[in-house]
Amino acid sequence: MKKLTMEELTAFCNQYGFIFQGSEIYGGLANTWDYGPLGTRLKNNIKDAWRYYFIQKRDNSYEIDSDILMNPTVWEASGHLSSFTDPLLDCKECKTRHRADNLINDYSLEANADAMTQEEMFRYILENKVPCPKCGKSNFTDIRQFNLMFATQRGVTRNSASMIYLRPENAQGEYVNFLNVLRTMRTKLPFSIGQIGKAFRNEITPGNFTFRTIEFEQMEFQTFCKNGTDEEQYEYFKDYGISFFEFLGLSKEHLRFHNHEKLAHYAKAACDIEYLFPFGWGEINGTHNRTDFDLSRHQKYSGKSMEYFDDQTNERYIPYIVESTYGLDRIVLAVLFEALVEEELDAKETRQVLKINPTLAPVKINVLPLIKKRHSEKAFEIYKDLQKHFMVSYDDAGNIGKRYRRGDVIGTPFAVTVDDNTLLKNTVTLRDRDTMEQITINIHELTDYVENVLEFK
Amino acid sequence: MKKLTMEELTAFCNQYGFIFQGSEIYGGLANTWDYGPLGTRLKNNIKDAWRYYFIQKRDNSYEIDSDILMNPTVWEASGHLSSFTDPLLDCKECKTRHRADNLINDYSLEANADAMTQEEMFRYILENKVPCPKCGKSNFTDIRQFNLMFATQRGVTRNSASMIYLRPENAQGEYVNFLNVLRTMRTKLPFSIGQIGKAFRNEITPGNFTFRTIEFEQMEFQTFCKNGTDEEQYEYFKDYGISFFEFLGLSKEHLRFHNHEKLAHYAKAACDIEYLFPFGWGEINGTHNRTDFDLSRHQKYSGKSMEYFDDQTNERYIPYIVESTYGLDRIVLAVLFEALVEEELDAKETRQVLKINPTLAPVKINVLPLIKKRHSEKAFEIYKDLQKHFMVSYDDAGNIGKRYRRGDVIGTPFAVTVDDNTLLKNTVTLRDRDTMEQITINIHELTDYVENVLEFK
Repeated sequence: MKKLTMEELTAFCNQYGFIFQGSEIYGGLANTWDYGPLGTRLKNNIKDAWRYYFIQKRDNSYEIDSDILMNPTVWEASGHLSSFTDPLLDCKECKTRHRADNLINDYSLEANADAMTQEEMFRYILENKVPCPKCGKSNFTDIRQFNLMFATQRGVTRNSASMIYLRPENAQGEYVNFLNVLRTMRTKLPFSIGQIGKAFRNEITPGNFTFRTIEFEQMEFQTFCKNGTDEEQYEYFKDYGISFFEFLGLSKEHLRFHNHEKLAHYAKAACDIEYLFPFGWGEINGTHNRTDFDLSRHQKYSGKSMEYFDDQTNERYIPYIVESTYGLDRIVLAVLFEALVEEELDAKETRQVLKINPTLAPVKINVLPLIKKRHSEKAFEIYKDLQKHFMVSYDDAGNIGKRYRRGDVIGTPFAVTVDDNTLLKNTVTLRDRDTMEQITINIHELTDYVENVLEFK
Repeated sequence: MKKLTMEELTAFCNQYGFIFQGSEIYGGLANTWDYGPLGTRLKNNIKDAWRYYFIQKRDNSYEIDSDILMNPTVWEASGHLSSFTDPLLDCKECKTRHRADNLINDYSLEANADAMTQEEMFRYILENKVPCPKCGKSNFTDIRQFNLMFATQRGVTRNSASMIYLRPENAQGEYVNFLNVLRTMRTKLPFSIGQIGKAFRNEITPGNFTFRTIEFEQMEFQTFCKNGTDEEQYEYFKDYGISFFEFLGLSKEHLRFHNHEKLAHYAKAACDIEYLFPFGWGEINGTHNRTDFDLSRHQKYSGKSMEYFDDQTNERYIPYIVESTYGLDRIVLAVLFEALVEEELDAKETRQVLKINPTLAPVKINVLPLIKKRHSEKAFEIYKDLQKHFMVSYDDAGNIGKRYRRGDVIGTPFAVTVDDNTLLKNTVTLRDRDTMEQITINIHELTDYVENVLEFK
């Protein structure tokens, strides 16, 4: 089984309607991507799996959907306005712009720009004559901090008071709704608020296909708990993340924990789950013990008490938050990379097959009349009936082997072939994508059979 | 049965966790709203219903998910950069800002500002001394056109070449992907591209709760067809819209067509479906025959041929587009308003009940131990089992009548009561939200029974 490279995966996504370059006919907009019909279904199915795993089957777990545009004081409270920045400098020779930390880290494996101050980075570049990756010279401007939030004006007046921002993360939407969810759900600690939604970051160095983009979708899960139970929750959600990825079909040997040594000022502990992409290990989940930092800040900036009354102990306190964030676009990428293989069938023939978890497959059943003239009418009738239950496709073009392959390559778990036996005995041939084994099944049993395979378990 | 007012519905949404004011703890951000746990589930269920009705059960219908941020030339081609504007003026006395057309239309029922040029509006206001709604004086600045698109800077440079926009509609995402979908889905005309996603408009006069907001979600459906078949498609999708709304549970007498007399320059015909909200008739769907305007413009601006090769007639032509757009936030509002009623049970008692289509209900089953001490263990076991299949809740607080009411008011279609018979005979009492009738059912039949009710049909 041959695994594909990143370039091959990008070409695959374009060829089969999973992911296209954003605004492609206009030459694109750098680092934006549009999901095509199959990519959209795959993404929707991963969202549904997350909803099942994090919201539906858990107690005290609530999904919300807060707006991308928020009151700008939110970003003062969160610290994003003052410190969500990249250290940038310009090459005086070729006028290109770069991130100082990336220049240093790319220049030397020993250097650790993440641990340097702005001043230290500047001095390091100067002393080591770190070259511009574009022109090779080492003649840079001072380092300046640029905020990564996209800013826009609300209303039509042009004063700074009306400046608002595209959220750079969903989390603040969950935090500012902590009291609302507590009140309306009549719930108790520990409880969780999750959210699926878009976030935006004005980064100058994105890349690796959909791995790093300026517009991306997160599935976030924030657990509010009592100080003292936070470490247990943190460990729990690290493991829950691994089990979720296995549930999606990612294999354990392609997953690893990456504990952060350098922590954000608010964090007590932080750990990523990384997936082994063709370009190396890349973060697809981050779990953080954020302590009571966020709710304390929102209490301070909003003047609203964020205290929880614990009726077990008669105490009032600000809850701790354990965050577990999932990068949806990156998970789509990981699921595709994990599942897409080239198989040798015999000396002469290979097939490309997307061995995706059937619950995530964009199309569930491919309906095929064996002989177009003779079996189309019955096959189309079966197709229309299955359409009430599943995403299905109908294919009558070319020989049956070619049609099997067309389903295999986009991960369709079942092919249903309609032949003379269907007309005579109401049976169809059901072919399995992975084993390529075929069974004969009565058409009245088909829906239940497939539904059973597709149920989240 | 008493119907609620808009204010009562807003209060209801806040009280039960459907919809909260956006950034509420910071005093809000005008005309943004956050969906709480129940509102999010309702919205997700309406999306799923739309996907079933428009994508899954239709042939040649494809959902995509394109980025909010697009190459700015898209908005030149679409005409939004030059003409997606509001005519605004300022009151010189009290410094408030107003839309000229609204000033005129609110001033006189006979005047029709929509048919006036900017010049004519200015003269009308001057001659009729139209007063400022804030201070009552009539002393305004000139009218200026303000673009409704939110603008932001891509990258960190401050030049106009890097200005990008938050999309004011999803449609252009479907249009610029016309060729991609045609190619990858190997499809033929007529075919359709749908999309669910957020759009943004920098309007100064939004309002009516979530009816008009600066950030909103659309479910769009664009059908590409041959010139000559467009009128038939247009009529078809007007009717399809009505049937979709009936499928969601909106009653026919609260729906009407509103044909546009004044058409956008690109449109051949346009018709809204309006719902009878407490504040009057309001648009929840718009169907437009956009002719070949959009693809012709994109061909002109991108230089890419948008022609379709028709292998039936051997012709090449630019397809017509029939658009049918659904305002998701408005549909949530309509569904809630339609379903929420106050019922007199007898002389003494009333109940508030959300008679929502069970497929849309945020919670499907409320599990209730009859006597907490005796039935909790079994009830919780049943709850955990049902959780694998449905969104369920568990309620052991207060008398059974109160617990029924708590399910009724948020539209939970079923209450399952666990009592001695459950322990002895494995049966539970299943109560229907609307009829309040109760049946006895074996717990092993429960899942199938409820699943059958919840299936889209």
